[in-house]
Amino acid sequence: MVKPRKLKGFRDFLPEQMTQRKQMIDTVWKKAATAGFEPIETPVLEYLETLLGSGGQESDKELYQFTDHGDRQVGMRFDLTVPFARFVAEHHGQLVLPFKKLQIGNSWRGEKPQKGRYREFCQADCDIIGVDSMAADIEVLNVILDALSTLIPVPFTMSLGNRLILSAILKKLFQGISDDEEKKALIILDKIDKIGFEKAGQLLLELDAANDSAVSALEKILITATDKDTDLVSLKALFEGDADVLDQIERLEQTAEICRSSLDKESKAKVKVDLKIARGLGYYTGIVFETLIDALPGFGSVSSGGRYNDLVNRFSKQSLPGIGGSIGVDRLLAAVEELAIKREEKRRGVYVAMSEHSSASLTYGFKLAAQLRQRCGDERIDIAVKPSKLAQQFKYADRKSFAHVVVIGDEELQSGTYSVKDLESGTEAKQIHFDALLKHCL
Amino acid sequence: MVKPRKLKGFRDFLPEQMTQRKQMIDTVWKKAATAGFEPIETPVLEYLETLLGSGGQESDKELYQFTDHGDRQVGMRFDLTVPFARFVAEHHGQLVLPFKKLQIGNSWRGEKPQKGRYREFCQADCDIIGVDSMAADIEVLNVILDALSTLIPVPFTMSLGNRLILSAILKKLFQGISDDEEKKALIILDKIDKIGFEKAGQLLLELDAANDSAVSALEKILITATDKDTDLVSLKALFEGDADVLDQIERLEQTAEICRSSLDKESKAKVKVDLKIARGLGYYTGIVFETLIDALPGFGSVSSGGRYNDLVNRFSKQSLPGIGGSIGVDRLLAAVEELAIKREEKRRGVYVAMSEHSSASLTYGFKLAAQLRQRCGDERIDIAVKPSKLAQQFKYADRKSFAHVVVIGDEELQSGTYSVKDLESGTEAKQIHFDALLKHCL
Repeated sequence: MVKPRKLKGFRDFLPEQMTQRKQMIDTVWKKAATAGFEPIETPVLEYLETLLGSGGQESDKELYQFTDHGDRQVGMRFDLTVPFARFVAEHHGQLVLPFKKLQIGNSWRGEKPQKGRYREFCQADCDIIGVDSMAADIEVLNVILDALSTLIPVPFTMSLGNRLILSAILKKLFQGISDDEEKKALIILDKIDKIGFEKAGQLLLELDAANDSAVSALEKILITATDKDTDLVSLKALFEGDADVLDQIERLEQTAEICRSSLDKESKAKVKVDLKIARGLGYYTGIVFETLIDALPGFGSVSSGGRYNDLVNRFSKQSLPGIGGSIGVDRLLAAVEELAIKREEKRRGVYVAMSEHSSASLTYGFKLAAQLRQRCGDERIDIAVKPSKLAQQFKYADRKSFAHVVVIGDEELQSGTYSVKDLESGTEAKQIHFDALLKHCL
Repeated sequence: MVKPRKLKGFRDFLPEQMTQRKQMIDTVWKKAATAGFEPIETPVLEYLETLLGSGGQESDKELYQFTDHGDRQVGMRFDLTVPFARFVAEHHGQLVLPFKKLQIGNSWRGEKPQKGRYREFCQADCDIIGVDSMAADIEVLNVILDALSTLIPVPFTMSLGNRLILSAILKKLFQGISDDEEKKALIILDKIDKIGFEKAGQLLLELDAANDSAVSALEKILITATDKDTDLVSLKALFEGDADVLDQIERLEQTAEICRSSLDKESKAKVKVDLKIARGLGYYTGIVFETLIDALPGFGSVSSGGRYNDLVNRFSKQSLPGIGGSIGVDRLLAAVEELAIKREEKRRGVYVAMSEHSSASLTYGFKLAAQLRQRCGDERIDIAVKPSKLAQQFKYADRKSFAHVVVIGDEELQSGTYSVKDLESGTEAKQIHFDALLKHCL
C-alpha cells in the first residue's frame, strides 16, 4: 500500500476553497475580457533554454527541470511572463499590435514554502505588448485595480516604483557604482519591507561605491511614512537639468494620478508612488508595482508586475516592449482566509430522494432531475445515488444544506406526482404535479 | 538569442481558440456544479510512487518523472483519477460520502502526438466515490451526456461496456484462460475500432487459451452493426444460471435505458450497449464507456471513463468504490475545429480613441472607460494605449471588430462631451453627453 501524501509546498483544494478560487479566477477573467484583454494559454513545459537566465539567479535556482523521454532539457514555467515573451516572438505576425493579453494558470518554483507561498501557485496576468506608453501602463494597472476592488473586501494599497528612476538615484548618490553593484543594491532595496532600512543600509555599506552620507541621503529619499508618497518635489530638484529622468518622474506621477481618478468612488483601493519598490525579477526595465492589503502588512504582495521592454529580445530581433501585471490568485485566497471573512452558507437547491432504487423509481427520479436541471438555471439539483432509508437521505440533504427534498415513493410513482419538503421551514406538500413542484422549489 | 519554439506535442492557444476552450470548461463546470458535483483541485506534481503502477504499463512508460530539489522522486499526473484516489484516501474524513467530485485540469503523457492528441491535455472529470450503485453510474453518465449535448452540435454516441461481463465472456469462451492472458486479450479488444476484428482475431489466436471456434464465437457476440446494441438476449442465454453475470448484464441494460429516458427530446446523443468497449487503463473494475462523434468515427473518444472499485485501496484500507467520467476538453476542441463549424464574428463593444495622449486627455479617457466598464455588464470596452493618429486608431478598432468608436478630442474635452461613430452603419453623433453615449452604445 502506498502512503497517501503530498509533496512539500503543494496542496489539495477542498470544495469550499476551490469554489472560491474558481470565483476569483472568473472575476479576473470577466474584468479583463470586458476591458479588451484577450485570453491565451502556453504549455506548462518549455525548453530549458527558454526559461533559464530570464528571471535572474534566484529563479534559475528554483526552476523544476529535467530531461524528457526524447532527451530534451525541459523546465516547468516559473511565471507566465517569460513563456508569453516566447509566445509573442513566435506569433506576433498573427496578433494585432498592441496586443492585450490575459492568461490565468499555475507556475512552479522550488522555493521555501511560507505562509501563503506555495511551490505551485496560480497567477492571473494582464499584459500589453507592442507599445511603450503611459496609457499602456495605466490600462494594465486599472484592470488590476478594478479586479482587486471586487476581490478584496478591505482597503488595499498599490505602490508604484520605477527601475529607471531608482537606478538614476543610485548612480547619483553612489558615485561610480558598477552595473553589478547596482543589481546587488536593487536586491537589497527589494527587501526593505521585510528587513527594515537600518539592516538594508548596513548591507548597502558593504558595496564599494557606498558611504555613510550616500546611504543616509538614500534613506531620506526612499523612506516615507507608510501612507505617504515618495517626495517627488525634492526628487525633481535632485535631477534638475536631467530631462530623461525628469520625464520618467513626471510619467510616474501622472500614472498614479490618472489611476486614482479612474477609481470608482466606493473603491477601497489607494494608489501611491513609492520608489523603494524594486521587485525581484531581473527582466523589469521601467515602472514596477506591488500591492499590499492594509490589514495584512506582513503578508506580502498580492499583485505585482512591471514594464519589461527587452524581454522579447531574448527570442526575437523585433522590438516589442511590454508591461504586465499579475494577480497572485492563491496568495489572495490565503489572504482572504487570513482575514477570516465568513461567507454566508445558505440552504440552496433540490435533493431528489427515492424510497427504493427499482428500475421504475430510478427512471422516474432521473427524469425529474434532468427536467429540474434544465428548468432551474444555476440552481443545484442533486439525486440520491446510494440506496438507503429515506431518513438517511434526508440527513445527507441536510448536511449538504439543500433547501428542498423531493421524495419519490410508491404513491408518487403511481400517481405521477412528487412530494416535497422545505428543510428550513419543515413544511411539506404531498403529491403535487411538476408545475406546482417547480413553483415550490424556485 | 534563444530560438522561440515549443516542445513536440505541446501547443499555444491563440485568443479565439482559448476563448472557445474557456467556454467549454465553464459549460462543464456549470452543468456539473448544478448537478451537485463539487470542485476540487490536486497538485500537478505527485510522489512518483503515487502514480507509478496505477494505470498500467503503458501509462508508466509515458510518465514525466524526475528528481526534485529535495531529492524526491516525483511525477507529473497522467490523469485526474489516480490523484483523486490519493486525495480521497487523505481527506475522506472531511467529505460527506458519497462524494460527487468535479475537477478540470491538465494532465501529461509522453505519448506519440497524433491528430487531436497532445502530450499536455485538459480533461474535465466527474466522479462519485463511496458507493457502488447503478444510480451512481447513471448520474455520472447523465451529467456527461448533458454537458456533451451542449458542447457538441452534431449527433454523437456513448457506448457502454463492462469489464466484468467482458471478462466472464472471455473465461466462458477461452476455457482455462489465465489472468495474464485475459489482460492481453483486453488490450487487443480495446483496439478493435482501430485495427478491425479480423486483425484482432489473429492476435487473439496467439493466446494459449484461444482457438478458431472461440474467436468466431467472440466475434458473433461482440461485433454488431455500428448503430446496434450488443445482442443481450443471446448473451443472457449464454450465462443462464450464472446469477452474478446475469445481474451485471441486467444492470448494464437498465443503465443504458434510464440514461436514454433522461435525455432531453432534442438531444443529439445516443446511448448504446457495446461490450467490446474495454478501455486501456488498468484500474477499471465494472462499467466502462467511451463516446464518439458520429461524423468523426476515426477521431477517437471525446469522453470516457468507468468504475474503479479498488483504486482507493492503493492508498487506504477503507473500501471506497468509485465511478468517474472524463470529458477530453482539448480532444473535443480539436473535434469541433475538425467539424469546421464557423462561429459568427459580430461587431461588439466600444473603443475609446484619443486625438492626443496629454495628461488631461488620458484622465478624461480612462475615466470614461472605467465608467463604461462599470455600466455595460459583459460588453467589451477598450481604450487606445498607443499614441497615434485617429485614422490609425479607427483602423485598429475595425480590425478588432468593435461596434463603436468614441472619440475624445479638444472640443469634447472642453465641453465635457463625447463623439461616437457606429462602425457598422457609419453614422456619427457629435459631442453628446454620457447618458446619450450610453444609450448609443448599448
